[in-house]
Amino acid sequence: MTTPLLEPIAWLPRGAIRLLDQTRLPTDEHYLELETVSGMAEAITALRVRGAPLIGVAAAMGVLLALHDGEGETLARVEAAADLLQATRPTAVNLAWALDRMRARAAAASPASLHSDLLAEAQAILAEEQAACQRIGEAGLALLGPAPVVLTHCNAGQLATGGLGTALAPIYLAHAEGRPIRALVPEARPLLQGSRLTAWELARAGVPATLMTDSMVASRLARGDVTCVLVGADRIAANGDVANKIGTYGLALAARAHRIPFYVAAPSSTVDLACATGAAIPIEERRPDEVTHLAGIATAPAGTVAWNPAFDVTPAEYVAAIITERGVIAPSALAESLARR
Amino acid sequence: MTTPLLEPIAWLPRGAIRLLDQTRLPTDEHYLELETVSGMAEAITALRVRGAPLIGVAAAMGVLLALHDGEGETLARVEAAADLLQATRPTAVNLAWALDRMRARAAAASPASLHSDLLAEAQAILAEEQAACQRIGEAGLALLGPAPVVLTHCNAGQLATGGLGTALAPIYLAHAEGRPIRALVPEARPLLQGSRLTAWELARAGVPATLMTDSMVASRLARGDVTCVLVGADRIAANGDVANKIGTYGLALAARAHRIPFYVAAPSSTVDLACATGAAIPIEERRPDEVTHLAGIATAPAGTVAWNPAFDVTPAEYVAAIITERGVIAPSALAESLARR
Repeated sequence: MTTPLLEPIAWLPRGAIRLLDQTRLPTDEHYLELETVSGMAEAITALRVRGAPLIGVAAAMGVLLALHDGEGETLARVEAAADLLQATRPTAVNLAWALDRMRARAAAASPASLHSDLLAEAQAILAEEQAACQRIGEAGLALLGPAPVVLTHCNAGQLATGGLGTALAPIYLAHAEGRPIRALVPEARPLLQGSRLTAWELARAGVPATLMTDSMVASRLARGDVTCVLVGADRIAANGDVANKIGTYGLALAARAHRIPFYVAAPSSTVDLACATGAAIPIEERRPDEVTHLAGIATAPAGTVAWNPAFDVTPAEYVAAIITERGVIAPSALAESLARR
Repeated sequence: MTTPLLEPIAWLPRGAIRLLDQTRLPTDEHYLELETVSGMAEAITALRVRGAPLIGVAAAMGVLLALHDGEGETLARVEAAADLLQATRPTAVNLAWALDRMRARAAAASPASLHSDLLAEAQAILAEEQAACQRIGEAGLALLGPAPVVLTHCNAGQLATGGLGTALAPIYLAHAEGRPIRALVPEARPLLQGSRLTAWELARAGVPATLMTDSMVASRLARGDVTCVLVGADRIAANGDVANKIGTYGLALAARAHRIPFYVAAPSSTVDLACATGAAIPIEERRPDEVTHLAGIATAPAGTVAWNPAFDVTPAEYVAAIITERGVIAPSALAESLARR
């Protein structure tokens, strides 16, 4: 990487949080300064910050804001903040995972060490996710071949992690090595994380990319020039079933039909061993107007009923491998492999 | 149908053509008055009129405009008009089919009968397509069951045919019979014929419908409540391979994975026995800005490379049956069945 990494979230010296408002990309690279827990909760709910690893980081950092926000006993404020932040979005398990770490750290801290302990924990979560991205990139690189054409989905990049990304990490490393790589980027309606975010961060880093609508992926896989499909994940069940951005499952079906490997890249914080299968993963349904409108413009007649699940579940049988910071793991070996951590 | 049929194209008394500008739906129901062949060619290219059967009708009617548009020998003007109109869009075979009928009729006409003969031919093409829609509706109705949930794609309705539609015809007839039917409507990016046109014409006729993005269809088929997938076609090869709106192929793959029947509804004018397989069907690629923009708003960074095929090809093996005005035909029996016409 010769381009400096994006910094979608960062501490400000006065203790506030600087957040890249991803809803305004690609037009405006606008940064918010958040000082309250409710402000961070709104930012997560409204997808100003998104991506499973990054919302874990954002929630952990958001807990710190409780220390100088609101009244009452400090530990109770921290717990209330964790509860509020956890209720923002249901599917990505990283959110609950990061908040559980913050809750445990708070419970173990003395009143005098509470602030420094929570700060250390949030910083550790960010640093661990960044390191995991690097290791995912290195592990995934071995799967790509010399001149890869990689079809991804949604945004599993710097904007989703604060590091190099999950699915995009091997792409960045292949590009940095000088391999002639091309990324294929579906736009990811309704909220266009593909066209607004992935196309933007790949262009910023100089990685060649081709945008298409989500309806074009099966046709593109039929052309025979795609090396692999490589996506991120919002939650992975113990059996290897993968919840990820809506559209991922159709992509997996099309990859199977064309015998193209379908890989999932995610840190182990995305694996939820408490979910035996994908059927246990809660799927967020968002407001219908995300489907009936685009950028505030109505695309359907007034009164149209719309369905808007934000994620789908791809059964483990369609997943060739899960690329984690601990290496490349077969979905069937996931639970055993991670239980040994 | 208790709602009067839409009239997306009609003659005006003075010989001009009245055309519903489908690019302005669902916001404005605006009608153009076309007096020139080039005006009709622009309307077809810009998708002001679209849908395989209807662009055949529009092109046939457009040829008439040559009779009082331009200079030179009348028959030569008719032939030039047919050539201009045929070059507008490559995939739908109905365009060439209708223009071949107009050319043959012109070649056989006397100078005195040219106008009335061409008018009669264009009117016959419209009337035949409307009658075909009714018969497709009746044939398809038998496949739907008592309380059908039908997933369609793009717009294969009144706005695509001038009649009841192809894929939507069985849906309208089931609704008119009082069956509790629901249509599932993907939006059909990039140009949103699902949300702008299908959702609009179904709402106008009182048919319950649920809109979703194209990325949601596989997830919806996995839910287990979909009776069948039912789409139109832009060209069907002799072996039963089907070219239709981009996204159809992915839908067919997902239908197969869930053992849901995938039906194609089209008049026999959409079958091109000169194409042995789908590989011989030319696939229109449209301007990249249809993918990088929506309603004039950029959805991707400036300079983004985009791929924009308007159609894909679904292999015959995924098609349970083709519903034509001559009945329900297995794809493998298509060539033999239609050769007997």
